[in-house]
Amino acid sequence: MATQNLKRGDGLPPAMTRLVKELARLPGIGEKTASRLAFNLLNRPRDQVIALAESLLEMKERVVLCSQCFGLSDNPRCGICGDPEREHDVICVVEGPADLMAIERARTFGGVYHVLHGAIAPLDGIGPDDLKMNELLARLSGEGAVREVIIATNATVEGEATAHYIARALKPLGVKATRLARGLPAGGDLEYSDSATLTSALNGRREL
Amino acid sequence: MATQNLKRGDGLPPAMTRLVKELARLPGIGEKTASRLAFNLLNRPRDQVIALAESLLEMKERVVLCSQCFGLSDNPRCGICGDPEREHDVICVVEGPADLMAIERARTFGGVYHVLHGAIAPLDGIGPDDLKMNELLARLSGEGAVREVIIATNATVEGEATAHYIARALKPLGVKATRLARGLPAGGDLEYSDSATLTSALNGRREL
Repeated sequence: MATQNLKRGDGLPPAMTRLVKELARLPGIGEKTASRLAFNLLNRPRDQVIALAESLLEMKERVVLCSQCFGLSDNPRCGICGDPEREHDVICVVEGPADLMAIERARTFGGVYHVLHGAIAPLDGIGPDDLKMNELLARLSGEGAVREVIIATNATVEGEATAHYIARALKPLGVKATRLARGLPAGGDLEYSDSATLTSALNGRREL
Repeated sequence: MATQNLKRGDGLPPAMTRLVKELARLPGIGEKTASRLAFNLLNRPRDQVIALAESLLEMKERVVLCSQCFGLSDNPRCGICGDPEREHDVICVVEGPADLMAIERARTFGGVYHVLHGAIAPLDGIGPDDLKMNELLARLSGEGAVREVIIATNATVEGEATAHYIARALKPLGVKATRLARGLPAGGDLEYSDSATLTSALNGRREL
């Protein structure tokens, strides 16, 4: 029965093969997941697939960086920078737009942001000039008095290096710089905490 | 500092929020993965995002079911059914297009297919009439003599039920029905095999 020399593809029409290939370029999506997604999309109502395709195009067309904070925006100035009810003299510095989003979700910060678009990582050849660092310094000297800069870079080696760099750069400007507290996460279990977290939690202990 | 009553969104421009929402509809993709994907797409070159969007639309526009085997195709008759070099008197019955693809990838089967688009599952209210079952029977009585029907439904309860249903329906037609062998998978480790697999492997043992 087997005719081994048969020339053949993968049994998929070219349009499906192409979709699987495009989906497999996404991070964390291998060829198997991509074809599972493609089959799922095939069985979806037409409008839903069109909605996904359109939202991709719309995102690429509309989303720009805010000229002030470099967060994502669909206007030259983002909604947060343009909001008169926010405190414009408290700037929270984050590595990326996803970090800004996480802080906004917490609904506890009422100031504005500055997005660096990365962190200092000498091993990867990323220095301050590859980030929106000069833009931050220009903003601090140019604008009205800034009361506080909250450095909210990640608690990683790169994030710490970036925080130290910013703190040092702010000294001569006379701007108060603070860093996010480190310690046990909410719901954190002592038993399963790593030593670095416990060390931060101990060092940062507060009187009750 | 905190102004808790601030009306605000998630710090994302609407176009990004929409894309995240659309991506999160995909199976196995939660909101966190969706926003990771959206940020990744945001940083991609424009062409790549357009290519993905276009492949989605193209798939939805072009892909139809083959009128003979009900596999995916971009023509009324698929490449396999239209291939004169394949053996048209051996029909392999599978549950879905992904199964067809898996068998094609093995490059060992030279016959044609019939895609049921599901399996009999009384608990989910899926009976033979919800599948391409009548189309299979019509095909077997209508076409030239079929030598063999290989029932390649899944080794699940539903797949087994479907296989038995087909075997019984084929009896009066005098068509030979076979079922895929069950046993240890390639590279399978006895130690980690489940009892059902080992039982099949023992019952189906062959003389050397």
